[in-house]
Amino acid sequence: MASASTIFIAVIGAGGVGKCFLTQLRDLAVRRPSPKLSLCYIATSRKALYNDDYSAINLDNVIDILAASSKAPPTLTDLVAYLSKAPGKAIIVDNTSSQDVAETYPAALKAGVSIVTPNKKAFSGSYQLWQDIFRASAASGAKVYHESSVGAGLPVISTLKDLVETGDEVTKIEGVFSGTMSFLFNSFAPLTGSGGKWSEEVKKAKALGYTEPDPRDDLNGLDVARKLTILARLAGLPVESPTSFPVESLIPKELESCSSGDEFLEKLPSFDQQMEEKKASAGHKVIRFVGSIDVGAKDVKVGLQTFDPSHPIAALKGSDNIISFYTKRYGSNPLIVQGAGAGGDVTAMGVTADLIKVIGQLA
Amino acid sequence: MASASTIFIAVIGAGGVGKCFLTQLRDLAVRRPSPKLSLCYIATSRKALYNDDYSAINLDNVIDILAASSKAPPTLTDLVAYLSKAPGKAIIVDNTSSQDVAETYPAALKAGVSIVTPNKKAFSGSYQLWQDIFRASAASGAKVYHESSVGAGLPVISTLKDLVETGDEVTKIEGVFSGTMSFLFNSFAPLTGSGGKWSEEVKKAKALGYTEPDPRDDLNGLDVARKLTILARLAGLPVESPTSFPVESLIPKELESCSSGDEFLEKLPSFDQQMEEKKASAGHKVIRFVGSIDVGAKDVKVGLQTFDPSHPIAALKGSDNIISFYTKRYGSNPLIVQGAGAGGDVTAMGVTADLIKVIGQLA
Repeated sequence: MASASTIFIAVIGAGGVGKCFLTQLRDLAVRRPSPKLSLCYIATSRKALYNDDYSAINLDNVIDILAASSKAPPTLTDLVAYLSKAPGKAIIVDNTSSQDVAETYPAALKAGVSIVTPNKKAFSGSYQLWQDIFRASAASGAKVYHESSVGAGLPVISTLKDLVETGDEVTKIEGVFSGTMSFLFNSFAPLTGSGGKWSEEVKKAKALGYTEPDPRDDLNGLDVARKLTILARLAGLPVESPTSFPVESLIPKELESCSSGDEFLEKLPSFDQQMEEKKASAGHKVIRFVGSIDVGAKDVKVGLQTFDPSHPIAALKGSDNIISFYTKRYGSNPLIVQGAGAGGDVTAMGVTADLIKVIGQLA
Repeated sequence: MASASTIFIAVIGAGGVGKCFLTQLRDLAVRRPSPKLSLCYIATSRKALYNDDYSAINLDNVIDILAASSKAPPTLTDLVAYLSKAPGKAIIVDNTSSQDVAETYPAALKAGVSIVTPNKKAFSGSYQLWQDIFRASAASGAKVYHESSVGAGLPVISTLKDLVETGDEVTKIEGVFSGTMSFLFNSFAPLTGSGGKWSEEVKKAKALGYTEPDPRDDLNGLDVARKLTILARLAGLPVESPTSFPVESLIPKELESCSSGDEFLEKLPSFDQQMEEKKASAGHKVIRFVGSIDVGAKDVKVGLQTFDPSHPIAALKGSDNIISFYTKRYGSNPLIVQGAGAGGDVTAMGVTADLIKVIGQLA
């Protein structure tokens, strides 16, 4: 049984980000002995590991012990009940992309359990859920941090919150919010040279692991729309959902009904000419897949736009993200954040940094 | 007499940044009624305003009331004693660039008074003072935040702290850390076109208010060296002082002894040829005044370097700063933060954002 100054941590999810996070948590617990960080719960969608007396799970070999566990995960309601009775403050670290887990946040927060997560679903779903989450947090004092829901570990959410909370007026947010889209357009329509065929670049991106198993899950623009929904809401716009504003899909209408990603990739070359024409119509500019929020005009949109070669968005490299904040205080030159916006280690870094901030406020 | 849940704020300095901060503090106190923020002390180097019962000073016309005050500021030791007896947690917001105020931080922190400041002096002076400050903070739990000591309101210190605290390995930090130097080189050696004469650009920068009253205070590189000292220490290097590593001064030796900034500007044109030669020797690259920290090699330096036109440092505009963090997790493409790194409003924004973070941990 741990002392009252212990912080109890429950982790849901042990995939790519989850595994990186567990390593970072293990190292963090060693580097910062006070307050004591105790992993009291870990679960995947099929297995769980926890002790009724809240005693700590060994972080050195947690993945192995979890694999050997025969316990099924309790319901999320039971998990919240378990954590609300912990002999100290508790935090759920949700490293899934599950809608079900996201919908538990209001109940968890109401029960005084804080949330740290890279899961976009809670913040980009219905506006009602967004309101329920932040009202529950305000009422109980439990914290909810989600830096890695946009741009992974890049300081995007924290920067926007600082701008808003210190009273700056954010006028526009613009950027490349998808590592996949960044890689595709930096290769297909590079700043110098002519670039490859569209269908070839999509295949290459998939082979390099830069796309979802079915590349249409990147090309439909929904991932970017979710991120824009989060930023727009933080900037003060009550965006109803990620489908309530214009989102350009790069999936040809004729290929929407393909039964698999493989069939899609096989048929994609016959649409290369369409993309070539779009590239050519940009003239001396370059096309990029961007999201933008015009706060004053309440205009949120996701899709292709053209940029002058001297624009920072045109000069992006690899699969980097770039986010520009235009504000009253910063004037005509925006505050820009740029770098890798995907990957297990950097996503987990945003989660761990959030955890440190929450601990600082709970301890 | 205020209640125990009030946070007591003492502001030192009411110059450019100080005035902007007071406006932001007034608005913040209205937007965030809980915990109550109470300005209990304000002082310049000549005047002070405070009440023995810690009752709040009206933020709506604080500058006018301060001007009308006949009280001289107490000693800093007396100020710390006053704040340590406040009926609630107290925070000093130091909006000066005073070494004397900076040297009070350890005593204030020891007494449980937190510090928020853009003042570089405390963090870039002797390494002993740095250690005294962070040891006092660790011992008492009082906080010390100084985002605006590097890059004004840009998320530079917070990003570096997040990288280090989550266990990333920072390998290199590189950037343009001076708005003045940024403006001078973006005009003198632009990416396209030939640029103006060096002495003319310095005069123009002064006329636009981009330099200190004596431009030599920018051209000697010490301001950049101070910022590098802070970042290097946060990255783990025990840099002794801002003069303990190579700093290139752009003041010709012959003009160091000029008795005034005006005399300096008058004689500067005869050294234009020297700068022209430096510009020409860069070939197809461009020269920029940068600071860099190679963490592994423990190599910190400030001075002129050349950059390929495709490098983000070469594409900088106006008086913007750019800071690139190279780390193990981010690999070959760094995490980049860019934007205005000077100015009253954005510097005050960093101070206010820090204040909000400290309040979150004290309340």
